[in-house]
Amino acid sequence: MTYCIGVSLDAGLVLTSDSRTNAGIDNVSTYSKMHRCMTTPDRMLVIMSAGNLATTQSVIQQIRRDVQEGAPRNVNTLNYLADVAEYLGDVLVAKIRKHTEQTGFVPDATLILGGQILGRNPNIYMIYPQGNYITTSDDTPYLQIGESKYGKPVLDRFLTRETSLEDAAICSLISMDSTMKSNASVGPPIEMMIYSRDQVNNPKHYRFDAENPYLISIRHEWANQLNHAFRAMPRLEEHAHPNGGLHIF
Amino acid sequence: MTYCIGVSLDAGLVLTSDSRTNAGIDNVSTYSKMHRCMTTPDRMLVIMSAGNLATTQSVIQQIRRDVQEGAPRNVNTLNYLADVAEYLGDVLVAKIRKHTEQTGFVPDATLILGGQILGRNPNIYMIYPQGNYITTSDDTPYLQIGESKYGKPVLDRFLTRETSLEDAAICSLISMDSTMKSNASVGPPIEMMIYSRDQVNNPKHYRFDAENPYLISIRHEWANQLNHAFRAMPRLEEHAHPNGGLHIF
Repeated sequence: MTYCIGVSLDAGLVLTSDSRTNAGIDNVSTYSKMHRCMTTPDRMLVIMSAGNLATTQSVIQQIRRDVQEGAPRNVNTLNYLADVAEYLGDVLVAKIRKHTEQTGFVPDATLILGGQILGRNPNIYMIYPQGNYITTSDDTPYLQIGESKYGKPVLDRFLTRETSLEDAAICSLISMDSTMKSNASVGPPIEMMIYSRDQVNNPKHYRFDAENPYLISIRHEWANQLNHAFRAMPRLEEHAHPNGGLHIF
Repeated sequence: MTYCIGVSLDAGLVLTSDSRTNAGIDNVSTYSKMHRCMTTPDRMLVIMSAGNLATTQSVIQQIRRDVQEGAPRNVNTLNYLADVAEYLGDVLVAKIRKHTEQTGFVPDATLILGGQILGRNPNIYMIYPQGNYITTSDDTPYLQIGESKYGKPVLDRFLTRETSLEDAAICSLISMDSTMKSNASVGPPIEMMIYSRDQVNNPKHYRFDAENPYLISIRHEWANQLNHAFRAMPRLEEHAHPNGGLHIF
């Protein structure tokens, strides 16, 4: 599996992805799932992918070709991020359909597009295998693809539009670490892109492998803090009382 | 959906369940998913259920009838907890198969059996819709059914065989609360049974509705502590460094 998080904040974007792919439990590899598009200088576009690796590679290749060959519709000719999402959806559906028609196998994949076209707000979109897409809202400033459930509570707890880029980055790393702890199909290296609004030429890219000192310090400190938090919980026996007993059937 | 946790400790058992059922998002009800069997005084047996409500109700009814009618094989005639799990599996499969054969619809359900037969250790089993079952291990002292992913990280972090009953209860409440925060299909009241080894006549039963002061205090204090923990994380900008940038395709 995979786990990717896209966070859309007033201050910009934070995109995070793991790097583990597997075709069966005995065929585990490391592939980057974060792809920055070659674009004109007025925009910054990053695509994260979950699902069938052949599909996502062929989508990325098609997007590149459309730029190189000057196709009328490519990531540089579209003027709205939503139109780029629509275009990605069309490419994605075409790649999935080709293989479905040939073999009956449906090589599904899901994408997150994050970026900005200057003059408009930065934003993120999740593109479904069916080609349609959603964006964030003020109440839910993030999108996830892949193994999203383990790491969702910490995002729900801390992320708002007003969260700083750095806090959202730390929150995403904690979410990723919790997921890796509970699910063996999500693994390092972790890639992260921190993008400050309007700085299209300067997205900061981080790569945390399993031995990265900062990733380890986040993991240890979070575990320490949670142990401390757990010890501070109000005690059950002092504050709660058993009732008459469970109905016996 | 549903969320139930069974924890098997050296000191005894902690069983926790939510009470929300839904048949579609517009048909939400409250049903207890924790059922204590009527047994002989040498044993204490509790069943938690997830999945199709008609199936779980008909399973519970069949178990009760087998006791009342003195069937040769019932929850009181079996001498090992594993045999009780096997029996529950057979009842479960029979109920599911009946409806599958009649309509093609497969009304799946999954059970957790927790309890003790005096003279043996307390234990828990998870019984699959296929009738087979698993128990815990020293490394993984808990089992979950239903919406299990959101609340798994906190269990992985804190539970060992040596954990006290009270700590396991608090951990289970936090796991349940995180799940309710992230998934609307899991909801209060929360039921909890705390069972001390060999005290077959005295399992303590708690019921926490949405307004229960202790549940609210756990929720608030955990949120406070996590906020504190989050503030204490080592800062990204001080300790991590962006690399040369993301490969552009």
